[in-house]
This record gives sequence, C-alpha cells and structure tokens, in this order.
Amino acid sequence: MDPFGTRLERTLKKAPAPLCIGLDPHPGRLPDGVGRGIDGVRTFLREVVAATADLTAAYKANLAFYEALGPEGWALLEEVRSWLPPGVLWIGDGKRGDIGSTSAAYLRSALELGFDAVTVHPYLGRDGVEPFLERPELGVFVLARTSNPGAAELQELPVALGPGRQVPLYVAVALLVRDRWNAAGNVGLVVGATDLTALEALRHLCPHLPFLVPGLGAQGGDPARARRAAGRRALFVAARSILYASPGPDFAEAARREAERLATILAEAGP
Amino acid sequence: MDPFGTRLERTLKKAPAPLCIGLDPHPGRLPDGVGRGIDGVRTFLREVVAATADLTAAYKANLAFYEALGPEGWALLEEVRSWLPPGVLWIGDGKRGDIGSTSAAYLRSALELGFDAVTVHPYLGRDGVEPFLERPELGVFVLARTSNPGAAELQELPVALGPGRQVPLYVAVALLVRDRWNAAGNVGLVVGATDLTALEALRHLCPHLPFLVPGLGAQGGDPARARRAAGRRALFVAARSILYASPGPDFAEAARREAERLATILAEAGP
Repeated sequence: MDPFGTRLERTLKKAPAPLCIGLDPHPGRLPDGVGRGIDGVRTFLREVVAATADLTAAYKANLAFYEALGPEGWALLEEVRSWLPPGVLWIGDGKRGDIGSTSAAYLRSALELGFDAVTVHPYLGRDGVEPFLERPELGVFVLARTSNPGAAELQELPVALGPGRQVPLYVAVALLVRDRWNAAGNVGLVVGATDLTALEALRHLCPHLPFLVPGLGAQGGDPARARRAAGRRALFVAARSILYASPGPDFAEAARREAERLATILAEAGP
Repeated sequence: MDPFGTRLERTLKKAPAPLCIGLDPHPGRLPDGVGRGIDGVRTFLREVVAATADLTAAYKANLAFYEALGPEGWALLEEVRSWLPPGVLWIGDGKRGDIGSTSAAYLRSALELGFDAVTVHPYLGRDGVEPFLERPELGVFVLARTSNPGAAELQELPVALGPGRQVPLYVAVALLVRDRWNAAGNVGLVVGATDLTALEALRHLCPHLPFLVPGLGAQGGDPARARRAAGRRALFVAARSILYASPGPDFAEAARREAERLATILAEAGP
C-alpha cells in the first residue's frame, strides 16, 4: 500500500473539498423514520454516507460512539468501511495512547477495522505511539491543540525549551512530532479550528505535516478562516452539524445540503 | 452507591494486599489446554480470576486487548464483571480523553461495563474529563507519570508555574488534579512504579489522592519500594507477570503463586 502522505495527497486532489465528515451516532438523536436501536443507527449512517460520499475527502468515526453501543456497535464499525467509495479516507478517531505493548493491541484493532489513519494522545511520549509510527501506510494524527473550550488548561502551560525560550505545551508537542516522531513520514497533528492563532502558528512551524482540523460546525470554528490558516495539507472535520442537520425524515438531504455548504466554503477559501 | 473513596478504603481494609491484577489477554499467548479463539480467552481469564480472587483488591482490564478481539471481545468484557467477588474493584483502563460530548459517550460505556473506576488522559483539560468527574461513585485515575521507558519525553518537560518556579509537566498535572479537578473527591493519579522519585514526589504533594501504580512485574518496578513510596492509598498493578506465569496447563496455579508472592511483598512493605 502507498505511504499515507501519497494517499492523502491523491484524495485531496480528487475530492471537491478537504472535508471530513464525522460519523458519530448518538442513539438518542436518531432522526424520524430510520427505526430504533442498532438497525436504526445503521440505516441512519448508511443513508448519510450515500448522500454525501461525492462531496467529501474523508469520513471519521469517533470510536466512543460505537463503544457506547456495546458489541453491536463494534460490529457496525467493522461494516462502515465497506460503504465508502475507493479513495475516500477512513479515520479512526480513538485518541489512544498507552504503553508500547498495549499500543500494539490498539494497532491490531485499527488495522482490523480498515482505518487509513488514527488519532493518538502524545502524553506517553514516542514509545507510546511507536507501533503506529512504524506503519508508513497508516496516518497518525497526534493531538496538539484540541478544539474543546478547556483545551488551554494543559495545552498552553508554558514549557521552557531552553534559556529564555518558552513555548506553550502544544507547540512543544508539535516540535517533538516534527523533529523526532515523523521518521516514516506518516505523522500529522490534530489542531482545532476554534483557535486560529494556534492553527496559524503550528502551520508556520510545521509546513509539511498534515493537519486534522476538528471544531467546525457545532463547535463554532469558522471554516473559511480555518482553511486559510491551515493551508493545503489539512482535512476539516464537521460531525454533528451535518449528521443532525434535520431531525426529520429528510435528514439525508439536509446532511447533503450542509456538507455541500461547508465544502463550497472550504473550496473557495483554499489556495 | 457509596463514593469511590469510601469503597476503595473498604476494599483496601478487607483485601490481604493492595494488589490489582491486570486481565489483558493476548490471543497469541494463551496457555496450553484452554483452547483457542474467544472461548480460549474466556476460559483462560475465568480460571485466572478463580485462582486469584481471594488475594487481590482489584482487577483491571486494559480495554485495548478486548477491542483487538473485535465485537466478541467487547461481549467478553461485559461478562468478566460477573465473575468478580463483591468488594473487589473492577477498573477500566482505557486511558480515554476527548471533548466533553464524546467523554459522555465513554462514560456511558464505562457504566454499562460495570467499572468501579477508569483511567483518563489529562491532555484535553478539565472539560475533557468533566462527565467522569461528576460521578462521585466512579473512581477516575488521571495519567500523571506513566511507567513506559519514554514517559519522560513529555512528562518531564519543564513547566513554568510562576516566576522562578519550574516543575516537570507531570507535577503540573498532579497539581491541577489536586486543586481543581477533584471537587467530588473521586479523582486520583496514575503513577508508575518504575520511577520511585516521581512516586515519592507526587505522594508528598498529594497525600490524600488515591494512586493507581502500574509497572510491577514485566515492566520491572520494585513492589516493596513502590509500596513504601506510594503509601496506603494506592493499588499496585501487575498483569503479564501473573497472567503468563506459566505457558503450560498449570497456568492458574502459577498465576496464584505469583500473585501470592507479590501480595506478600506488598503487605509486608506496608505501613
């Protein structure tokens, strides 16, 4: 299989916009007309995928929402891969991070589920994500600056990198990724659209790393400004604003309209 | 249900030692005589639990190893809870950490699986773990100093907390937990047995927080010295050294012997 960077580039060239649609099903928010339980979730996701597949570069599953559905949720997650058209990327957003022997088990799971890329926590250091780093065909997005309101509490702690040189923790993480963790060329960063200053700063420091940019839509990030700040090598994630665009039986058309709206903004703001 | 602190105290009083046995099944390491596949894993774990349940204060499942077994692994994880005697704690070691709406989904999953406590990553800040913090009956162990060889890469980055005051990142995390995240009294720290200096420093700074101390056994931490450094409010984890004490059909007796050996050392080193 081609290295992740090559595949990402190919996908970004082919797709109408660098959009990544989050498929995060909440059983309490299923629209009318799809039924309930795991079959309702399946119908719901399948119709959203069918209605949006020609508009997007990638889909992303936040594993929490499948785990919360129990064993049936994991079986469904195995199935989703088969609905995606070739060339569209499939990202497993599990934010894993554990000691090496455990990360190897998470890697087995990610490969089993057919993910093209995953997300990981940096806190354990390089050997915690090592099993992922050694697979050039698998993209690895390391959390740097997340999109949640309280992200700054830890991520902006001032780290002393040398005499007179202080940077926020998220910059220190980005520098580790850029300078030490990316030997196989498959590693990128998660940088939220909700802090444009951080997004610009990290793009400036790491011009060649792919970014996964969550926080559009429900979390309030501005798609055009995020696109201008993050540049060409980035995927921009919206989940709830597309998935739950309508609570009625027109949910799939509404999802398509919202995806189209975002795709147009992202494409027009692009370089 | 009683608050987690009360239940932990009761368990520590009753159990012969503050031992926590990690039930992390690797399908390639099943001993002879239990069969293969998911049924082999079930027989293996069930016999280890039966052989050790009177020696331990807690069992811990690292979720990676169940996830790697697919939907059947998650079904098995739901089952393990029912094998444990009352009063023995069940810890879900998933090292989760995501934005609030996603953490709520992980919380649903943890409650569904019957865990008494979970482990979480600190990197997203307080609002990333908030849904867990609001459940006084659920223990929440936040990663501070992990037991892996490369833990220092991030966790010892020097953080400037004020003019002339610099601490390693893991100390900054511990102070956040102690001073801001523990309003409901259910939060503790993960601190590896592999760095006794860190363990002593954190115990000194946070005398009242419960610690989950991995890194005994296969990872080389010294149980007696770890016990003396971490004190009374701590659970000490061994997984591989107990689970895989023998590759033969005597695996359950061998697991019991190793658990007994560790329990004796931990009890004798205690206050």
